[in-house]
Order: sequence, then C-alpha cells, then structure tokens
Amino acid sequence: MKYCFGIDIGGTTVKMGLFQEDGELLDKWEIKTRTENQGEAILPDIAQAVKAKMAEKKLVKEQIIGLGMGLPAPVTEDGIVQNTANLGWGYKEVTRELEELLDGMKVIPGNDANVAALGEMWKGGGKGHKNVIMVTLGTGVGGGIIVDGKCLVGAHGAGGEIGHLCVNYQETEICGCGKKGCLEQYASATGITRLANMRLAKDEKPSTLRNVAEMSAKEVFDAVKAGDEVAIEIATEFGKYLGHALANLAAACDPAVIVIGGGVSKAGEVLLDYIKGPFKEMAFFADKDTEFALAELANDAGICGAAKLVLK
Amino acid sequence: MKYCFGIDIGGTTVKMGLFQEDGELLDKWEIKTRTENQGEAILPDIAQAVKAKMAEKKLVKEQIIGLGMGLPAPVTEDGIVQNTANLGWGYKEVTRELEELLDGMKVIPGNDANVAALGEMWKGGGKGHKNVIMVTLGTGVGGGIIVDGKCLVGAHGAGGEIGHLCVNYQETEICGCGKKGCLEQYASATGITRLANMRLAKDEKPSTLRNVAEMSAKEVFDAVKAGDEVAIEIATEFGKYLGHALANLAAACDPAVIVIGGGVSKAGEVLLDYIKGPFKEMAFFADKDTEFALAELANDAGICGAAKLVLK
Repeated sequence: MKYCFGIDIGGTTVKMGLFQEDGELLDKWEIKTRTENQGEAILPDIAQAVKAKMAEKKLVKEQIIGLGMGLPAPVTEDGIVQNTANLGWGYKEVTRELEELLDGMKVIPGNDANVAALGEMWKGGGKGHKNVIMVTLGTGVGGGIIVDGKCLVGAHGAGGEIGHLCVNYQETEICGCGKKGCLEQYASATGITRLANMRLAKDEKPSTLRNVAEMSAKEVFDAVKAGDEVAIEIATEFGKYLGHALANLAAACDPAVIVIGGGVSKAGEVLLDYIKGPFKEMAFFADKDTEFALAELANDAGICGAAKLVLK
Repeated sequence: MKYCFGIDIGGTTVKMGLFQEDGELLDKWEIKTRTENQGEAILPDIAQAVKAKMAEKKLVKEQIIGLGMGLPAPVTEDGIVQNTANLGWGYKEVTRELEELLDGMKVIPGNDANVAALGEMWKGGGKGHKNVIMVTLGTGVGGGIIVDGKCLVGAHGAGGEIGHLCVNYQETEICGCGKKGCLEQYASATGITRLANMRLAKDEKPSTLRNVAEMSAKEVFDAVKAGDEVAIEIATEFGKYLGHALANLAAACDPAVIVIGGGVSKAGEVLLDYIKGPFKEMAFFADKDTEFALAELANDAGICGAAKLVLK
C-alpha cells in the first residue's frame, strides 16, 4: 500500500490529511499557520509535520506518492505564487521549496477553491461526475471548475474566479475587486446581507427580519423557511443573480453537476430551490438538465481535493 | 514516419487533410456532404475518401495514427451525437460507425467550433499557448475553449457555447436559441447588422451607412475605417457586449490568449481595438493582460484541429 498527504493552507490553520492510495482518509490534524515574517515558517512547518507523521506511522519516503496542497492564491501549474492576501508570501516557488524541504518528495499545489471543487467531485456532492462546477458562498464567492476530472487552472492560475463574473451591468456600488456588478455583491454572505438591508430600506412592509439584532444570510434563509414574504423576495433576488451567472458558466463549461458550498449553503435544499428556476430560464438548451447538489465534505473538501491532485 | 487524417464536416462539404505526425499538412481536398436520407452516406463517403487517399499515397493502416473529425453538433467524449441541424443525423454513434468502416482505425470526433479552436491553438492565432478561448463571429457566434492544450468538451459535448452567454438582461428580442440577450444577438454578422439598423432608425444623423444597398458587418467596419461616426458608435456597442462577455469568460477560464475568428474578423485589427477596452474595463485583475489575436488559419482551422485531436 502507498500513501499521500492532502494539505489545505488557510490564513489561520493548515489542515492536513494522510490518505491511502485507494482514497481512504487515515488521519487528519491541523497546525497553526504562522504568517509572520512574510510567512517564512509555513512551508518548513508543513514539511516538519509531514515528516513527524511519517515517523509516527513508520512510513518511508518510497511509500509516499506525493503531497497535494491547496493555497489561498492563484498558483500556476509549475507551482509559482505571485502574491497572497493572507499568508504573507510575495513571489514564491512553492513546489520547488517544499520539494527541497521534503528531500525530493513530489509536491502538487493548486488554488484552494479549485482544490475544494476537486474534493467535492471525488468524494462529495459531485461524486460520479468528471465535469463539475463548484461555487462556494462564504464571506466572498469562490469557485472551482473541474473539466474532465481535472482542475481548470488557467494561464495565470486564476481559473474559476466565479465570484467576479459580472451579473448586473447597471450596478453602481463597487465590489471589493474594484469592478461593479460582480456575483459576489449579491450571492456571498455579505452580498445577501446587503440585498436584505436594501430591501428593508425600500418600504415599510412587515417582516421578521426587521427585528433581528444582526442581519445575516442565515437570518434571511431562516425567515424564508418560516414563510416571511420579504425574506422570500430577497432570496428570489439572490437566486436570480446566482442562477443567471451559473447559466452563463454552464454555456461555457457544460458541467454535469453544479455543487453549492460554503457557509451560506448550510441553509440546505431551500437554497437550491431559489437557484434552479432562474438557471433553467437562462440556460442554453443542452444545459437545462444540469444537476444541482449541496457540498458534502465541509472542511474536509480541501484536504480531499489536495490528495486527489497527487492520486490523479 | 506516421500519418493522420484531419476531417472537418460541414453542411455542404467535408474538408479533409492528410498530415505527417510532425504536424506537416501534406495534402488537402474536399468531398460533397450528402445529407439526404438522414445523412446516411456521410460516414461511408469519408471512409472511402480516406481509403482512396491511402491507396494513392501507398500508405498502409499501420502507418495511420488515426482520424480526427470536427462535427457541427455537440458530441460527447465517447463519440455520441444526439442530433444535428445540418447533416440529417439524429442519434448517431459516430466513433463506432466510422471505426468499423475503417477496419478499426482510431477515430476521435469533436464539436467543430472546439476543434477549430484547437487548430488555432496549434498552428494559428493561439500558437505557443495551452489555454485559449476562440470566438468565431459568423452568421452566429461559436466558440471553443482550450484548457491545458485540450478541448473543453463538457458533460453533454456542449462546452464553449459562447454565443449563448447572456450579455443583456434587459433585451426584449428573442435569440434563435429561444433566450433573450445572447451574445450572438450583438456580435454575430447578423447581430452587427441588427445593431446597425437599430442605430440608423434612432435618429437622422448623417452616415455613409444610410446609402448601402444591403447592411452587413463588412459595411459597418468599412465605414468605421473611413471614420464614419455612426459606424463607430455601432462598433463601440458591438465591442462593449463582446468585450464584457469575454471578460466574464476569462474570469472563469483564465486564458493566455483570446482568438477572434469567423467572417466578421476579416475586418482585421480594428475589430480588436473595439473589444480590448471593454474587456479590460470588466476583467478580473489577473486577466487584464490577456492577449488578443486574430485567427490565422481561416478554413484550415478545422482540419488542423481535427488532426491535433489524434496527434495529442
């Protein structure tokens, strides 16, 4: 039996998993992400954790197929990162540096959103399919596109930046990226909160949402489930923007299934109900029957997808 | 030396090419596409033409790597076509049927727009790159997306349907596909003519376009080159829709280069001038420096890309 490691580097913790070559997750654990001094300790810490786990499990280098890794930044196929928002790294040759620290063990890095999509294709909401779009509705909107079983990495390592598709050419407010009308402005947790506050300010229509201490996507979808009419209007607007964006993406990428993940997806199946209608209305005929699924792996999507990078 | 065939099936003619394995095109010719009787003669005609060429060039089966083929329909990776608009075929197992007719020679089919994009990546406007988007501005708007050197085929063989991205959610006229606001309504030859007629009807502003016998994309861009202000307004509107659509596509697919082909592209570099500005305005930051190029292979893109399907 051979083994591999799946690593998911976040701004706070590095999640790590040891997998058998047949895909079984044997062990998972976390270490702290030490971002100080331009994040110089991050890769050495990972290398040390990998070596310690190998010693603990009495594994030798020859038994390790390699180490896959998701990073919160665009990363090219040859393992170059130009910049990171959360790790402290500027230009960094991730593959070369970590392979040296691991005495030549094979390292394959990828963008974290793309890698999570690969994980969901392998073991989660996209299981059984080779063409998958995953959209992650969190503080922002992230995404990953899987084409024929592999991550769409792109020329600059920036494939799958679904959150920055323009869905409203009339928007006047500016997105965090500097553009206007990005999907992220309507479909992220922050975006849903923004839609909710705008709707409530529009008129005096009664709504339980007027009583919440702090507006959030969760409050909106809880109110939707309770039948609140204003909340339903907000969810309808959210679903229109997201459904239309996904229809455009499907015309380009023709997925078998679209997987919805991230914190907002905890609302459950009701979320999909609001997305499917507008998707179908705007989809190219060949894509109208594209399936929708909720993500299933939660925080394990990253380590699973990372392992899949090396298991192929 | 080994050889392969690249075949491009159109509604009127089948274009055929014989290539060396190093990519050199040795010979090209055409046969008629016989679409009568549900197109039952098309594949046998192709098989006969291939065998005749092999006899003429004294080639034996063992010297042929295979036969790649572009079709005007979505086609899945396993060679299934569900329907064609122009060939008379309904459900057809293209790979199996043609491999039988060719005594087991390897056949790899693909959608014609995707295959043309692969050709342009290999030998044309996208040469030297592995991530390419090609958009073909003809009667309609077609497209092909090349990811890491391979066609994005998709789950239903319908990847790269760029013409049916929605670029105007306020549109009231219906596209040929049944939706409203598709890129094809603004950026095809027909779409540019429509924009021109709408602009001319809006007011009485003088323009040389008011004197043309039959409005066309060529007339519009000829007038642009002559400095006609109304024509420049029309080209600006065309460029805004196409540039914005390509910016959305680039956020998803992160190409190194976007290749513009089809009849409209005969207008030349001036066309790119109108696309680049709106693209850059709407592009995600990682994609702002994406290159633009005109297609270079004209009618040979299909046979070249088809050959590349088998040469890998």
